Amino acid sequence: MSTGAHRGSPAGKAHQAEPWSTAITVTTDDRVFVRGVALDEAIGREAFPAMLLRLWRGDPATDDEAALLGACLVASIDHGPLSPSALVTRTIASTRAAPMSGLAGGILAFGELHGAVVSRAMRILATVPSEGGIDPWADEVFETERAAGRRLPGIGHRWHHSDLRAERLLELAAARSDGRHEAAVRALAARVRRHTGSPVPVNIDGALAVALTSLRLDPAYGDFLFAIARSFGLAAHYVEEQARERPMRTIDPTSARYDGASVPGFEALEEDE
Amino acid sequence: MSTGAHRGSPAGKAHQAEPWSTAITVTTDDRVFVRGVALDEAIGREAFPAMLLRLWRGDPATDDEAALLGACLVASIDHGPLSPSALVTRTIASTRAAPMSGLAGGILAFGELHGAVVSRAMRILATVPSEGGIDPWADEVFETERAAGRRLPGIGHRWHHSDLRAERLLELAAARSDGRHEAAVRALAARVRRHTGSPVPVNIDGALAVALTSLRLDPAYGDFLFAIARSFGLAAHYVEEQARERPMRTIDPTSARYDGASVPGFEALEEDE
Amino acid sequence: MSTGAHRGSPAGKAHQAEPWSTAITVTTDDRVFVRGVALDEAIGREAFPAMLLRLWRGDPATDDEAALLGACLVASIDHGPLSPSALVTRTIASTRAAPMSGLAGGILAFGELHGAVVSRAMRILATVPSEGGIDPWADEVFETERAAGRRLPGIGHRWHHSDLRAERLLELAAARSDGRHEAAVRALAARVRRHTGSPVPVNIDGALAVALTSLRLDPAYGDFLFAIARSFGLAAHYVEEQARERPMRTIDPTSARYDGASVPGFEALEEDE
Amino acid sequence: MSTGAHRGSPAGKAHQAEPWSTAITVTTDDRVFVRGVALDEAIGREAFPAMLLRLWRGDPATDDEAALLGACLVASIDHGPLSPSALVTRTIASTRAAPMSGLAGGILAFGELHGAVVSRAMRILATVPSEGGIDPWADEVFETERAAGRRLPGIGHRWHHSDLRAERLLELAAARSDGRHEAAVRALAARVRRHTGSPVPVNIDGALAVALTSLRLDPAYGDFLFAIARSFGLAAHYVEEQARERPMRTIDPTSARYDGASVPGFEALEEDE
Repeated sequence: MSTGAHRGSPAGKAHQAEPWSTAITVTTDDRVFVRGVALDEAIGREAFPAMLLRLWRGDPATDDEAALLGACLVASIDHGPLSPSALVTRTIASTRAAPMSGLAGGILAFGELHGAVVSRAMRILATVPSEGGIDPWADEVFETERAAGRRLPGIGHRWHHSDLRAERLLELAAARSDGRHEAAVRALAARVRRHTGSPVPVNIDGALAVALTSLRLDPAYGDFLFAIARSFGLAAHYVEEQARERPMRTIDPTSARYDGASVPGFEALEEDE
Repeated sequence: MSTGAHRGSPAGKAHQAEPWSTAITVTTDDRVFVRGVALDEAIGREAFPAMLLRLWRGDPATDDEAALLGACLVASIDHGPLSPSALVTRTIASTRAAPMSGLAGGILAFGELHGAVVSRAMRILATVPSEGGIDPWADEVFETERAAGRRLPGIGHRWHHSDLRAERLLELAAARSDGRHEAAVRALAARVRRHTGSPVPVNIDGALAVALTSLRLDPAYGDFLFAIARSFGLAAHYVEEQARERPMRTIDPTSARYDGASVPGFEALEEDE
Repeated sequence: MSTGAHRGSPAGKAHQAEPWSTAITVTTDDRVFVRGVALDEAIGREAFPAMLLRLWRGDPATDDEAALLGACLVASIDHGPLSPSALVTRTIASTRAAPMSGLAGGILAFGELHGAVVSRAMRILATVPSEGGIDPWADEVFETERAAGRRLPGIGHRWHHSDLRAERLLELAAARSDGRHEAAVRALAARVRRHTGSPVPVNIDGALAVALTSLRLDPAYGDFLFAIARSFGLAAHYVEEQARERPMRTIDPTSARYDGASVPGFEALEEDE
Repeated sequence: MSTGAHRGSPAGKAHQAEPWSTAITVTTDDRVFVRGVALDEAIGREAFPAMLLRLWRGDPATDDEAALLGACLVASIDHGPLSPSALVTRTIASTRAAPMSGLAGGILAFGELHGAVVSRAMRILATVPSEGGIDPWADEVFETERAAGRRLPGIGHRWHHSDLRAERLLELAAARSDGRHEAAVRALAARVRRHTGSPVPVNIDGALAVALTSLRLDPAYGDFLFAIARSFGLAAHYVEEQARERPMRTIDPTSARYDGASVPGFEALEEDE
């Protein structure tokens, strides 16, 4: 047998590929169209959250809808340097690995327990009956998740006893829906409270799930919304780490301090130390 | 020597860690403060691009500044399924690997030649003298990059002969600056044109660099802005791939078609086929 | 309230950390010890697969065990440029993004359907009863997976009708075990054959699961073994892509050809084209 | 204009793709061939490092060459839980994100200062003249790297005053080469010593660079060798983290302890605490 160029595919005949289509974006010589809208026309005319909703949902957004999606982005934008994703990004930043490595690494910290919860909450909320009692539904969801060994998404938080972000977002979402999904998530929180005996907040994941469901977004986008919004925060942690700290430093989360703009409620902690 | 619990660190005595600080975010029992602003108060009141500018720059944004940053996000949001990052995300989606894997993988496709260019362009723009002729500066930059074997960032494009997104963004940025950075990037384009003999556009990277520089953002944020905005597009490609295509399909970029909302300038291509 | 340095943690009081321990590796001033063995002493004296088994299992390996683990690595080392992971790595290589980005990106393509299957197969094999009939167990596994909508791991292949790698690995594993796990995986293949009506091979995932189970490795290491061994192949694809192809080229899997050393059985394909 | 299926590519006519070739791997119905060798025949007959050298270099390996490459893998396999990559992997493991996320995340921590150094060292070593004095070359390399603001790769270590792994690997490599590359890296260490006034070891990166250069491997494979070998260690840290620790725990590197097999030289540290 001779060496040299063989005409055959490295995988035998198996690699045919069917034609396929996308409905998201098309480009011409000088323009980019997303869901049929030229980006050059949207620049400076369409608010970013409106464009995002158009991209993800396919149809145009009302001003209220755009404002609600923008509020979801604001709510998710950061949670400090000690969340696992931020610590991963900072650790990668400390080795002076590339910015995209820091960003991707931080995103990879999102999992079932941190940051990849909203989609699951949206899928649960999607099962609430459009009529009739919500409490039986909440009981059934609680039992199902418990039997499966899964935490109920949208309820409770590692650090916060309540979460004003969640409350505020639920208010905003309520203004533009029939309130059923908000009632559903509060019923779940009440069911958990019966079980544990202490109050549990609807957390930011639960509030995001209600808001994004009211915006008629596919549940798959729940986790993407959270992760990409949070990525803006990860970027800030990457930049601050490289600006302030020496390379390859050991990051001890317990010795972290806040030295930014003063905020109410924080001085109390200071006095305790 | 006995086995069992040793009291020493697995790295000897080397792992002390100095105290460190962050100025970005602090959380209390029920609130999250980013650059001193409570997210619960910003939700529904502060536009997302304004919050982003505050997060990345540290000080509040004017409405014009927020609008310009929002326009940068819009401009970057997607570029179709055939950009390398979108193909990576779709390939990962086709194996039914997790959403965060698809997102992180697509981000990792951003490099010198695709999507990680804006920061470098901003750093070059930062060297333009505040007074005096720009053309000598443009000559020097051109020669420096050429001698180093590097492409001049911000100029030209693989597919587009001109780029209306870039033109529109430059207009918007010009409205709020002294125009010097725009003049600088146009001088670079002119210098490249003298070299190649044909027109080259200021591309979206160059326009983003001008806009983000006028917003006084650290150049490090240039690539982050592009990559994270584009991530919203990657998410759409992940979702569409899993919604439309069977798992493990072979993705042939040459057989991709657009079947979305009709756009001007596209039917002409259709007739040619 | 004053600005400036606050003494409080950015996360309130929540960040205490308990002491923790590792039993894997300890370093001193001039040496590294993995599972109690000095790497400098192992270098040149302990075969790599033996060291790997020691690292992952904690106790030393016999020569046969090391040889079997080495065979698992060989079996997994590559599967050509058209597997999704290799295509991802090549796409990232084409943008000239960094080697680590190419490697990590390719790894992220491993999911339920491609490359992250061995651990699940090992967990299923672990349930085979140590005595008594295997066929009832095979029936039950088949029904459980089917009811859950999951593919049975270890059986069948997208491209291969049979898989000599799998057969050879099963032979090797059989030489050092009581054959029960091999019998189990073959019973699963027979059960699938009854269902589909055509022969299905035990594939490389099934063979790896049998071999790694006989080596008493934790099932978690199944996917790691496959993915890291395959990473050596991904590296070759990254290097070849950058050596042979121009940057940012469009990768069409259907136009790939093999031009390496001639192999038996491949010329037949050539004649057919 | 009508909606519905357009026949045009989403990127206009720009996406033709040229045919391309690979020389690495080809598959047939039942076999996989890497560099012309059937994996089913190599399984159990060819040692893994020999197969790896064949994959990466294209031609078969002698027993000595395979042993040296195997020694490189052993030397790199782990460095404890406090290296940045291991901390990233553990942090991702703590959120219960997927194993591939933990692996890819840890790999992304490798950068200029940690784990992505060997290739650069190999490229520097490749410039040593085949004849004549090495010291002038060492002076020139030192000055060039210093002027460029780069650390000299292969010399020194964050933790170790000397590195017996490196010494042992250099011995092994010396046995099969003319010693010129080893002399080169020692000349660099001597030049650095003249500059700093204190002894600096040739570190593991320098020793790997010498060994892999003597194996005639493309410098691109230097970082891949290190990163993929180290990935086996990252996997162990992922598994141990999930086996021993509760989810979402705060990882404090300064409170880590070693509780594995006892080793010489470690009790001394214990007494000091």
